[in-house]
Amino acid sequence: MTTSTSSTSRMRAEIGEQPDALRRTIDALLPRMSDVGLLAKGTGQVLFIARGSSDNAAVYGRYLVESHVGRLATLAAPSIATAYHRKIDLNGVLAVAISQSGKTEEIVETMAWAADCGARTVAVTNGARSPLVEAAEVALITEAGDELAVPATKTYTTQLAALSVLALGLGAEVDLDHLRRAPDEVERLIAVTEASPALDSVVEGLAGVPGAVVSGRGLAFGTALELALKLKEACYLHAMGLSYADLLHGPIAVVDEDTPAILVAADEGPTLAGTVALAGRVTGAGARAYGVGGGEGLAEACTFALPGPRLPEWVAPLGLIVPGQLMVEALARRLGLDPDVPRGLNKVTQTD
Amino acid sequence: MTTSTSSTSRMRAEIGEQPDALRRTIDALLPRMSDVGLLAKGTGQVLFIARGSSDNAAVYGRYLVESHVGRLATLAAPSIATAYHRKIDLNGVLAVAISQSGKTEEIVETMAWAADCGARTVAVTNGARSPLVEAAEVALITEAGDELAVPATKTYTTQLAALSVLALGLGAEVDLDHLRRAPDEVERLIAVTEASPALDSVVEGLAGVPGAVVSGRGLAFGTALELALKLKEACYLHAMGLSYADLLHGPIAVVDEDTPAILVAADEGPTLAGTVALAGRVTGAGARAYGVGGGEGLAEACTFALPGPRLPEWVAPLGLIVPGQLMVEALARRLGLDPDVPRGLNKVTQTD
Repeated sequence: MTTSTSSTSRMRAEIGEQPDALRRTIDALLPRMSDVGLLAKGTGQVLFIARGSSDNAAVYGRYLVESHVGRLATLAAPSIATAYHRKIDLNGVLAVAISQSGKTEEIVETMAWAADCGARTVAVTNGARSPLVEAAEVALITEAGDELAVPATKTYTTQLAALSVLALGLGAEVDLDHLRRAPDEVERLIAVTEASPALDSVVEGLAGVPGAVVSGRGLAFGTALELALKLKEACYLHAMGLSYADLLHGPIAVVDEDTPAILVAADEGPTLAGTVALAGRVTGAGARAYGVGGGEGLAEACTFALPGPRLPEWVAPLGLIVPGQLMVEALARRLGLDPDVPRGLNKVTQTD
Repeated sequence: MTTSTSSTSRMRAEIGEQPDALRRTIDALLPRMSDVGLLAKGTGQVLFIARGSSDNAAVYGRYLVESHVGRLATLAAPSIATAYHRKIDLNGVLAVAISQSGKTEEIVETMAWAADCGARTVAVTNGARSPLVEAAEVALITEAGDELAVPATKTYTTQLAALSVLALGLGAEVDLDHLRRAPDEVERLIAVTEASPALDSVVEGLAGVPGAVVSGRGLAFGTALELALKLKEACYLHAMGLSYADLLHGPIAVVDEDTPAILVAADEGPTLAGTVALAGRVTGAGARAYGVGGGEGLAEACTFALPGPRLPEWVAPLGLIVPGQLMVEALARRLGLDPDVPRGLNKVTQTD
């Protein structure tokens, strides 16, 4: 059993297992591209069904499918199925249910509802023999291996890999080799982040504040939401995940000397300039901005910055969360918490 | 100009103007139901386009349309239009753009993009002669009158009224008289809330903490998000708006003796029982739960509770935010802040 001050938490070990987990997942799933393409024939749009970290993976999926496939892709409201028991017309919809365990009843039930409403169904899960796999027409099974720490790390990044394959199966106009490069890049990024003095500076800064805003936009928005979720669940930080644009519609007021902003961005892409400008606005207001990724431009505009993956924007989220995972794990230990077992949480969450 | 300690802020005055604003809006828009129905012929689903408070109104709209009309209704990602400039097939989609001013360029541009992608377009706005109205095929103009306080109150609740009319135009299986009752109920609720000793208790409790979780589910989820946004923008509270189910997937860890949960629910409906159970879980963990609405059941399960509107679940959100608005206004003054002019915000937010 790990202790709260151990430097070898399970969470840290599982962060380090991501390169291999991603390699296995990409190798296993790339041959399934055509199954996705075949199932999607006759469908026009994608509807993701997920909760928690899987929901943040779905946010990546929706931006990827919309921006690089050109299909409408949105997120379902599971309570319509499970609480309101209302049928809606889902003919022409490809429903993609995402659950690490494949056992969360709410997600299994909502996918069954979607099928009943006329949707075709895909499961993305690490649970090879789970109810979700049994019920789906096509299952994209991630090869993360067992994950024991409660905060999801390798099950999350392998979900992103599965969603990249989904997008490829739907005809995404991207270079497959970029996806193949992602595992090595995650490996490099773990080493670079842990060697960066900025990691200690950011952890020390976050250890002294009650909350933070975490922001990103477009393809990086899901990463911001996932980092905010991790900071809440493992560090009990009041972390508010917001898109760049939503932040400016009100919540920017909350950023002050005791409420830093953590800004995440790929090293390139159409949302980078706005993220750099936001960093300038935050520091100009006397608050701290911590950057993750975003290249030289974001690093220069921020108080401290961690480098991100050297990957094109569409596949950058597979690596962009990694400095954030290391930040969360180190911050939890710095606060005397056990990152592996946050209070009040179990590995499989059952909601109705 | 109001001062931060005045008991007659513009925000408070505008909260009080809501009954009349709702009456005018409902009277003006009910005759437009058929225009919506006509435009929606040949469309199968609704796609909302909004930011900030308007986005929280859209969340109400999506649950209302899905649960009571039976059409798929989801939220657009504006950056696909404005940052990625990617066309996607929106034939058969009714795009509903919501903006208080009707001038936010991001929303105007995204609605134009939707039309260009094949969608039919509806504008919901308080800006009668705004660019959004000019560009939309059908405009549902709210009759809130001028709103001068930066935190939206009457422009938000009149948006909810407009979205109720939208749902009626789409064939919602509800009783029109319940909508007509909403303005009187808001009037009653303002008086009841201000007379409630629980208001002072909640405000005093929130004045001493850095953050709070705000949660609701289904038709009440938008209310939770809107209350969290208001607490962030006017009180600089680290308020995290989360659905009941998402809360249990991680963020429940953040709730502790210094992080109360504010739980909102209609007095009836299929999500009430889960909200009451959540209140029990929060207080059982030694944290405070503040209830808004949810009838006797939620009040008894909470540390303090404010009564909600006596309205059926589908139309309850028009009143359910009102105790929250009064809470926010009183908390801002209690903290020595001017609720009318939060730092860093303007009335019309321009995002790209």
